[in-house]
Amino acid sequence: MTAYDQLETRFHRLYALRGAIAALQWDWAAMMPSGGAEARSEQLAALKVVCHDVLAGPDLPDLLDRADAERGQLDPWQQANLVDMRRQWVHEAALDGRLVAALSKASSVCEHHWREARPADDYARVQPYLAEVLSLVREVGAAKAAKLGCSVYDALLDEYEPGGHEAEIEPIFDELARVLPPLRERVLARQAAAGAPLRPQGPFPVERQKALGLAVMATLGFDFAHGRLDTSLHPFCGGVPDDVRITTRYDEADFVKALMGVVHETGHAQYERGLPAAWRYQPVGQPRGMSLHESQSLLMEMQAGRSRAFLTYLAPLAREYLGGSGAAWEAENLYRLYTEVNPGLIRVDADEVTYPSHVILRFRLERALINGALTLAELPEAWRAGMLELVGVAPPSDRDGCLQDIHWYDGAWGYFPTYTLGAMSAAQLFDAACRAEPGLLDAIALGDFAPLMGWLRTHVHGQGSRLSTRDLLISATGRPLDPAVFARHLEARYLG
Amino acid sequence: MTAYDQLETRFHRLYALRGAIAALQWDWAAMMPSGGAEARSEQLAALKVVCHDVLAGPDLPDLLDRADAERGQLDPWQQANLVDMRRQWVHEAALDGRLVAALSKASSVCEHHWREARPADDYARVQPYLAEVLSLVREVGAAKAAKLGCSVYDALLDEYEPGGHEAEIEPIFDELARVLPPLRERVLARQAAAGAPLRPQGPFPVERQKALGLAVMATLGFDFAHGRLDTSLHPFCGGVPDDVRITTRYDEADFVKALMGVVHETGHAQYERGLPAAWRYQPVGQPRGMSLHESQSLLMEMQAGRSRAFLTYLAPLAREYLGGSGAAWEAENLYRLYTEVNPGLIRVDADEVTYPSHVILRFRLERALINGALTLAELPEAWRAGMLELVGVAPPSDRDGCLQDIHWYDGAWGYFPTYTLGAMSAAQLFDAACRAEPGLLDAIALGDFAPLMGWLRTHVHGQGSRLSTRDLLISATGRPLDPAVFARHLEARYLG
Repeated sequence: MTAYDQLETRFHRLYALRGAIAALQWDWAAMMPSGGAEARSEQLAALKVVCHDVLAGPDLPDLLDRADAERGQLDPWQQANLVDMRRQWVHEAALDGRLVAALSKASSVCEHHWREARPADDYARVQPYLAEVLSLVREVGAAKAAKLGCSVYDALLDEYEPGGHEAEIEPIFDELARVLPPLRERVLARQAAAGAPLRPQGPFPVERQKALGLAVMATLGFDFAHGRLDTSLHPFCGGVPDDVRITTRYDEADFVKALMGVVHETGHAQYERGLPAAWRYQPVGQPRGMSLHESQSLLMEMQAGRSRAFLTYLAPLAREYLGGSGAAWEAENLYRLYTEVNPGLIRVDADEVTYPSHVILRFRLERALINGALTLAELPEAWRAGMLELVGVAPPSDRDGCLQDIHWYDGAWGYFPTYTLGAMSAAQLFDAACRAEPGLLDAIALGDFAPLMGWLRTHVHGQGSRLSTRDLLISATGRPLDPAVFARHLEARYLG
Repeated sequence: MTAYDQLETRFHRLYALRGAIAALQWDWAAMMPSGGAEARSEQLAALKVVCHDVLAGPDLPDLLDRADAERGQLDPWQQANLVDMRRQWVHEAALDGRLVAALSKASSVCEHHWREARPADDYARVQPYLAEVLSLVREVGAAKAAKLGCSVYDALLDEYEPGGHEAEIEPIFDELARVLPPLRERVLARQAAAGAPLRPQGPFPVERQKALGLAVMATLGFDFAHGRLDTSLHPFCGGVPDDVRITTRYDEADFVKALMGVVHETGHAQYERGLPAAWRYQPVGQPRGMSLHESQSLLMEMQAGRSRAFLTYLAPLAREYLGGSGAAWEAENLYRLYTEVNPGLIRVDADEVTYPSHVILRFRLERALINGALTLAELPEAWRAGMLELVGVAPPSDRDGCLQDIHWYDGAWGYFPTYTLGAMSAAQLFDAACRAEPGLLDAIALGDFAPLMGWLRTHVHGQGSRLSTRDLLISATGRPLDPAVFARHLEARYLG
């Protein structure tokens, strides 16, 4: 057995165990009764330590070095696999098992308290748990930064966005923070002049909304033999490629939120499902990073899902499932409704013109919290000030402020920028897909997503982690990330 | 750190990982889409190998010996814990990781094929997978038998029923096989003379049945902050004590099946939930064995759940939830319906007079399959012959014959006898509880299970694995297992 083959065996075991973790995390969010949290925390922490031990074993450096020496006999996929094996080893071996278990447990405990603190609007209650998480996250970041030779923030970011750098993100985000508010004002003025779209009147029973969501998932090509739709407080996509679990949440007064949640998460699910099947249990078979993952959900939700073509398909279906009729349910009115810009307090409900401003705020705040320029006690006020500056509205309560997102409470720091990197990548990928498949939008209007999905399968999903994010974008669109495509998309859709 | 303390740390980790396995197995049966089976098999096999490695580590024998030398400083719970630590180590260390992984995967694959073979009535389709499972089970049994110094069947039985012996079970079962058929005939003659009870007419929508089941679970004291009710093909109780997952299945023409399934599984759940909280992650905190586990479900379902007292409580509730009225819904009629003896093909639907005959058949067949006296090709015919002899009816198809139970296909061999050992233990425990708490049945008639549950918490649940099954029965009832109590119960209920 070659050193490389031994590594493949090791990683196969690792990904089977990580799949178990993913299933338990889905259960935590979608099924678990509240009293199960402590036991589940123990299970997850034990599993993460096992994964750590598999990956940070003392023989790994030697195996990696010997496999590097065998590079000549490896095909390009195997070579890419080996590169990512080492990358993962660097991340994991920087930590010791104690720290892995401590962060896992602290995140579980904090996330559990957040679930109750958020509806209670009680930041003070969860703040000590968040302080514990932040302290451990900084410890993790510092340990990884020392190995990777980068800043603490970059070390955390690298886990979600391999090769990402705060120094590259900051100017892009600063430019967005400069151009988006005046753009938003122009859009708001234009929409005010045109008058408000009509709002379909509810209530829309959850069961009918869910049936509509399932029908739309089927249209998007979701494979129900390999996945499910459920409900959770914070919509997400979990599980493994052969068993993808997506969730949404329902508001009986407004069916758009749940439905667009379903379309968004189906985009994530299709990425997972389309990953190269031959590499399921190897690093090269995994999603490339979270900005590309988010590009797939936003491509579905924002680029395709709020296009006139999609709403032409959706309007009769929505009327059928929700029993609607009249002008409010016409495709053009739904298009106006679905592309309404309305700067608000909640990130996950934000329109695509406002959304980056939410992300920029979180990026700035988490960097300040990581490097110590901001304390957790100061966070609520900094959030309010930042919202006023970036979005133009300030939350009257922490529930709609710094308690709204699960990420920090759950231990995910350095994750937020991938949302907006993803939005820009989505615009660029959809633009390229429409050029390559000229009939793509006409097909969507007929409920046929095959041309779009075929292009994504070939150029994104099926590539796994063979290429870097940058090289994948070049391969798929002819150039690296180009924020101008996103800007042009916003101009065309909202001011065109 | 003493050797004993080191062992506690080791077992804490083991039970956290086993809790993860339990959650994934629940998901498999209750939630997982069919296409997820292969990935889940990989996850479960990887986890079982991890558990094996934790328990069969090379330092365990030395730790156990050193802890034995420290016995003088251990309290009785710790001493009992140490005894079971060694017992578990003997079972696990008898195997190597390859065999553990092979049996786990073969069982997952076979169970998955069984799910499709059963409705298709296609034993031939699943037989090769079952052959693989049986071959590995025999290998496991032989390896354990060599360490335990017992027969292969006893080695398998010991996993479910510590200290159980086929040589002790056989005469009990032979005696039951002798006395039950004539008893059944007398009951049938008596019931025929009395005329059939009235049958409430459906359909009974699943949602209403589920609501009734949840109400009954609440009455029985099920803690919904620490558990859930879901649906699966084969009802079961899974999860961990702080997050107990029970399932049932629904028949819209007959609400009794699902409801009694709920009562049965709630009995299991209450045992889990009542285990000593201080010993959650240690062997001594676990259920003592499957016959006691089954005694708790059957005590709820058969002893309490089909008593006149329970049906007095249930009748108005069933009318309310299912919209029934008239003579069919009166308590006395429901009592006659719930104690109807009707020898049939399906074990899980069997009345308590017929049930042991099903178990005796499986006990005989699995022993013959294990020791080679019977082949899997001969199984369907042997099943038919055995049913004719023991129950008096023969299945027209394998779907209602040797394909009906999940156990063998899922790798559980040596499990079946615990059902009838449990039925006998249930009769003995309920008899003792009624003597100790004279108002127990009157309370049940008012929907108050506190007296019964209090007695069970003290005498059974809270004991964990501190005592052997035999000693626990003596401690709770004053004597070891006495089949005469079960016989008296049947005589009193069905011929009294």
